[in-house]
Amino acid sequence: MLNPFDDTYFMKKALEEAHLALEKGEVPVGAVITHKNQIIARSHNLTELLVDVTAHAEMQAITSAANFIGGKYLRDCTMYVTLEPCQMCAGALYWSQLSRLVFAAEDEVRGYRAMQTKLHPKTKVDFGTLKEEASKLLKAFFIQKRNLN
Amino acid sequence: MLNPFDDTYFMKKALEEAHLALEKGEVPVGAVITHKNQIIARSHNLTELLVDVTAHAEMQAITSAANFIGGKYLRDCTMYVTLEPCQMCAGALYWSQLSRLVFAAEDEVRGYRAMQTKLHPKTKVDFGTLKEEASKLLKAFFIQKRNLN
Repeated sequence: MLNPFDDTYFMKKALEEAHLALEKGEVPVGAVITHKNQIIARSHNLTELLVDVTAHAEMQAITSAANFIGGKYLRDCTMYVTLEPCQMCAGALYWSQLSRLVFAAEDEVRGYRAMQTKLHPKTKVDFGTLKEEASKLLKAFFIQKRNLN
Repeated sequence: MLNPFDDTYFMKKALEEAHLALEKGEVPVGAVITHKNQIIARSHNLTELLVDVTAHAEMQAITSAANFIGGKYLRDCTMYVTLEPCQMCAGALYWSQLSRLVFAAEDEVRGYRAMQTKLHPKTKVDFGTLKEEASKLLKAFFIQKRNLN
């Protein structure tokens, strides 16, 4: 049987969140966390609006998912995020013991792999799902910003 | 003239926060952030109480200080924290562009230096202030936990 709840389905939901960030003038990054094919957290970057460098999509999603679960650890959970997590977010994912991370676009400069941040040994990683859509959104944002200055 | 507002003075304030964490059954880590010798944020680890791995003392202090300042960047600010920051907290400090970090006890396993997390190039680092007091508090906590199990 065809499973409609595949990685593309959930990454689309993360992209919808990224679009909400863009509408607010934020760097367009969105995330969702799933548990048994159910979305238990949705978030998008709010660093400008909240005046807070810690308000990345992933950080909010971790807090929100833990709140839903009623426990600190995100075992049996998957995070879908439109951009590769940074040191801070990967560091938070380390503590969360997330089961699986899926990110769309790679960040070769500030991404956790370039920065050598360690995820939890239990966390499986996949990337590239809808990466063109995610990158296009980020590029559009930065071109717009540059033209405004 | 003698300056009463030295590193020891502010680290004592961070230790007071660590004691508050201990009273709540949390891993006893406390932090304060100063701006021109004024404390603008105080916090202690609340990961158990808030059921949130992101609720480290440093993360809360960064959010709180930015709120006080009305800006995301912690330039001209010093963070005093009783334990060496982890990957997540150092990653958050990277984004905050903190001017100076002072930590008491070293964390040779999960500290940001062992984990190779990058702070912002502008951040100066000192450590060791009141490290014995900070370590003693952490050891007491873990011995107590072990005896309860």
